[in-house]
Amino acid sequence: MNISEVSPPESDLDPEIAARLKRNSDGLVPAIVQDVDTREVLMLGYMNDQALHMTLTTGRAWYWSRSRGDYWRKGDTSGNTQDVVDVALDCDNDTILVTVRQHGPACHTGTRTCFTGRELTVTGTETSPNPMKGPDA
Amino acid sequence: MNISEVSPPESDLDPEIAARLKRNSDGLVPAIVQDVDTREVLMLGYMNDQALHMTLTTGRAWYWSRSRGDYWRKGDTSGNTQDVVDVALDCDNDTILVTVRQHGPACHTGTRTCFTGRELTVTGTETSPNPMKGPDA
Repeated sequence: MNISEVSPPESDLDPEIAARLKRNSDGLVPAIVQDVDTREVLMLGYMNDQALHMTLTTGRAWYWSRSRGDYWRKGDTSGNTQDVVDVALDCDNDTILVTVRQHGPACHTGTRTCFTGRELTVTGTETSPNPMKGPDA
Repeated sequence: MNISEVSPPESDLDPEIAARLKRNSDGLVPAIVQDVDTREVLMLGYMNDQALHMTLTTGRAWYWSRSRGDYWRKGDTSGNTQDVVDVALDCDNDTILVTVRQHGPACHTGTRTCFTGRELTVTGTETSPNPMKGPDA
């Protein structure tokens, strides 16, 4: 019987998921949030095991606030809530993708997403060699 | 004259962008990668200042590999390259959104995205109170 060297932190999260989850040095996993209707990437939040558990079992998006050191349910202050549609873990089990129905702007600054109007200038124009491979390539 | 307490790491990145960038304890910034055509969230990578500089100035997506401790240009091994369309920083300057033209599958396992087929079960059905506010609300 294999026992993983580091036990998952105590939480109500399904032990099977907790065993898979790879956390950063703060015990958190980044959670990308995407709008189910517009497909916009809205924001990046961070979840610990319990925040993921609450997200999966309540249908509302919960995060861990690194600045306040506390749980945070999106919209409780702003009213701009997120209803959870889907949650997926990536191939390395170290990133979460949360698909939500976003009510109101997602960003605390009032913009639609946290990236809206914050583009950097891209000067490179290099494209991949042979990007469209033929059937024999 | 204000001088920030911690100088940005040495790199070729535009000093104005380097001064804004907020890095994690490993000196990295998470980069969400989205397909410009399908709008799928493809993967999460990590960039240091120099990887962001190369991404902005070459038009190809560069990352920092945490496991190998080296720069990594997406597609150099797999052939599944990413041509950069847009790059944006979020409101807190601690997350990057890279919009790309993805050639081939984005995931090293061969799936279209790193999240494809890796959904977790969502049991919660709570929805936001008063999600559709009327004009007087």
